[in-house]
Amino acid sequence: MDPDSFRHYGHQFVDWLADYFEHIGQLPVKSAVKPGDILSKLPVEPPVSGESMDDIFVDFQQVILPGMTHWQHPGWFAYFPANNSPPSVLAEMLTAGLGSQCMSWQTSPAATELEERVTGWLRQMIGLPDHFKGVIQDTASTATLCALLSAREHATGFDANMRGIKDPLTVYASSETHSSIEKGMKIAGFGRDNLRLVDTRDDFSMCPKALEKAMARDIENGIKPSCVVATLGTTSSMAMDPVDEIGPLCKKYKTWLHVDAAFAGTAASDPDHRWFMSGTEQCDSFVFNPHKWMLTNFDCSVYFVKNAGILLRTLGIQPEYLKTGADQQVNNYRDWGIQLGRRFRALKLWFVIRYYGVDGIRKMVNKHIDLAALFAEWIKADPRFELMAPQQLTLVCFRLNPGNLPEKELQRVNEALLDEVNSSGEVFLTHTMLRGKYCLRMSVGQRTTDRVHVQKAWDLIRKPAEKHRTPYPG
Amino acid sequence: MDPDSFRHYGHQFVDWLADYFEHIGQLPVKSAVKPGDILSKLPVEPPVSGESMDDIFVDFQQVILPGMTHWQHPGWFAYFPANNSPPSVLAEMLTAGLGSQCMSWQTSPAATELEERVTGWLRQMIGLPDHFKGVIQDTASTATLCALLSAREHATGFDANMRGIKDPLTVYASSETHSSIEKGMKIAGFGRDNLRLVDTRDDFSMCPKALEKAMARDIENGIKPSCVVATLGTTSSMAMDPVDEIGPLCKKYKTWLHVDAAFAGTAASDPDHRWFMSGTEQCDSFVFNPHKWMLTNFDCSVYFVKNAGILLRTLGIQPEYLKTGADQQVNNYRDWGIQLGRRFRALKLWFVIRYYGVDGIRKMVNKHIDLAALFAEWIKADPRFELMAPQQLTLVCFRLNPGNLPEKELQRVNEALLDEVNSSGEVFLTHTMLRGKYCLRMSVGQRTTDRVHVQKAWDLIRKPAEKHRTPYPG
Repeated sequence: MDPDSFRHYGHQFVDWLADYFEHIGQLPVKSAVKPGDILSKLPVEPPVSGESMDDIFVDFQQVILPGMTHWQHPGWFAYFPANNSPPSVLAEMLTAGLGSQCMSWQTSPAATELEERVTGWLRQMIGLPDHFKGVIQDTASTATLCALLSAREHATGFDANMRGIKDPLTVYASSETHSSIEKGMKIAGFGRDNLRLVDTRDDFSMCPKALEKAMARDIENGIKPSCVVATLGTTSSMAMDPVDEIGPLCKKYKTWLHVDAAFAGTAASDPDHRWFMSGTEQCDSFVFNPHKWMLTNFDCSVYFVKNAGILLRTLGIQPEYLKTGADQQVNNYRDWGIQLGRRFRALKLWFVIRYYGVDGIRKMVNKHIDLAALFAEWIKADPRFELMAPQQLTLVCFRLNPGNLPEKELQRVNEALLDEVNSSGEVFLTHTMLRGKYCLRMSVGQRTTDRVHVQKAWDLIRKPAEKHRTPYPG
Repeated sequence: MDPDSFRHYGHQFVDWLADYFEHIGQLPVKSAVKPGDILSKLPVEPPVSGESMDDIFVDFQQVILPGMTHWQHPGWFAYFPANNSPPSVLAEMLTAGLGSQCMSWQTSPAATELEERVTGWLRQMIGLPDHFKGVIQDTASTATLCALLSAREHATGFDANMRGIKDPLTVYASSETHSSIEKGMKIAGFGRDNLRLVDTRDDFSMCPKALEKAMARDIENGIKPSCVVATLGTTSSMAMDPVDEIGPLCKKYKTWLHVDAAFAGTAASDPDHRWFMSGTEQCDSFVFNPHKWMLTNFDCSVYFVKNAGILLRTLGIQPEYLKTGADQQVNNYRDWGIQLGRRFRALKLWFVIRYYGVDGIRKMVNKHIDLAALFAEWIKADPRFELMAPQQLTLVCFRLNPGNLPEKELQRVNEALLDEVNSSGEVFLTHTMLRGKYCLRMSVGQRTTDRVHVQKAWDLIRKPAEKHRTPYPG
């Protein structure tokens, strides 16, 4: 394809995208296709001869698009958001066109130095101390794996890297922690059995007393605590582990403290919503994902470390074919993470932070928090519904509870409610379990979500509730 | 930014990219900036108020671009290529605009099913048997980590996932293997000391006799061999480990066989260049990177497994908040890799394979191999130079050897030659070490590289050689 054909199709695609952004709210947010529907429309064998871009683009629109769930839809209330923005999409276009590989300073000097700068910006924006250094990772799963590996090496004097783990090392996280911690425990060779899931308090945050008890018990049994993972904003209920109380325990027991603020970190860019960051200056590592709530295309997770030397000693590797004359003066970010190859992710962060400014990001954060608070008020005011966890930031956990139903039946009723609401195609919510109780999650955070969309969700949620005529509790 | 502003800047960026593609050959391929040059031009603090996209785009061109090393330049002969193509860039635009997260079938049904289909296409294209299943990973580093983890669980009956590695497990790879194997050994908790670097034959490929000896020795000492990593196309010299001879040894000793064909895999799409695949039907896992040589934007690495059940049992995880009604009928690719979050990478592969067709990819493969063969002929015909490894596929390892110089001095001469050639800005080559000898690597593989660019490289390489008037050997 010559540059002029690229120009032709590029213009066509930009126009299509602009229309998509304009009309996305009219598409069904959750695709209604059934398993196998799309597969059956795709030829089993690859084409021998090339096809025209016109044909490919038609198939994209007719075959692929109906099978997509639209993450950028204003009715997106599922999981956590992965919100993007036009400036971020524009930056991704340039990133793709440059086609740069950012493993080393030499392979992309500007990308490396821009990464140093924008992670510094983010550090200031969320209020971490000066001496933390940042690096862009793909996901919090990977960043947390880096944290677990650093903790492992820190606890064994870098011996596990050489000989594996000789004596059990334990890791502590709340029972509400993200699944990536368990996965990381397996990957890094700790073994799942050495993950201690610490009890939570009423608000689903980690109980520091239970943490200390668990650590002390392990030490008594000759087992070495190596790491505590504190979560700021759990996936199920946005619970905030008390880092200010956990920090001193980590110091006392000489364990690594990793803070997973994958979603919530963005809120810290507004001092009015930064309270949960209290104590994070004590942590050894910290991760949050601009690709969740900071208008930046997936993937873009930012990992901060207090001591980059430990990270480098844990993950650094210097084969001859990668050595360059500049290695002593620069950051080679390949040594700051799992993968060797790296995309130029700093560019989209630079575009987003500059285009919106810190003020613009704060404004968005406040809009979303206000919308969630409004929804929580509606839930509280309607006796047929109950709030299942304190509303924090952008998440509301709730369920329909028409009264006098056994727990199992309540779950069935709420599963049916969720199916009915999602099948509208206008909004998309997902569920979780909190202390064995099935809950619906209303998670606000799309860039274009406004009051009208939250209102629409509430209307759709209330409608099936009308069926339940049994007396209400309260 | 509203859709119409996106449209405006989108068109502007497309025009810029089309011009960039047209004129990239006139830019210096390797940036001449010094460490810190770019950083010093970027404000230390993030902007409080938003800035205009016009200003941001000007800075992109004036501040960032001069600090980029241009991976898509036709004079790119460094490392391995990471070649892209206009159809791939167009697909990346759509991927960015959709902003989809492809962790589960439910979160993007079409992306999941397209991934199943295009990895099936690739499997057929490179000649792997029907029963291999594919998944798209970000990099070969990560895919190889998945292979090591699967081997670990296979060897311990899935006990290491629960308790860590209790008794040492060894892994075997040639002394020319990629650094990601060592890194993976550390990450997965095997420990670096349990990696056996097997001696190579004259052509730098793994010696099967040495492999068997190493395995037998470990077994004698009560240590369990768990995995052999065979490389097809080593980074230093494109050596091809004899998988057809290694396979039976893995069967005999019940070890996992992983094949790393990160770069070379693309050549297998042409039956005339598929000879090195002999024996790969015996492997348990296989990785190659369309993002290296198959016109597909970084990142895009394809990982094939013979038994997906082992991979799923090794990496699968089912927290309540990710469960969906379709889980029993679909692929949830989050359980096929390290990360939970996943980009929609299948789209660009679909665009590339359809636009070029299998024939178009074969044509490119042949062009690049022919160009490397031509360069190797020039090296062989010039008595001042010597070939340092057999030329295979697209890589030529060579050095200037004006005769009668001690090894250390020869290295200095070739380092100076490399610096001089690269400082031209017209081509970019990198180096390696082969059996203690410093070599230059001429690695062909950019989409737009033609004979004229290889000729330019040869002219630039020969020019400094004129300085050396000492008698030539032969």
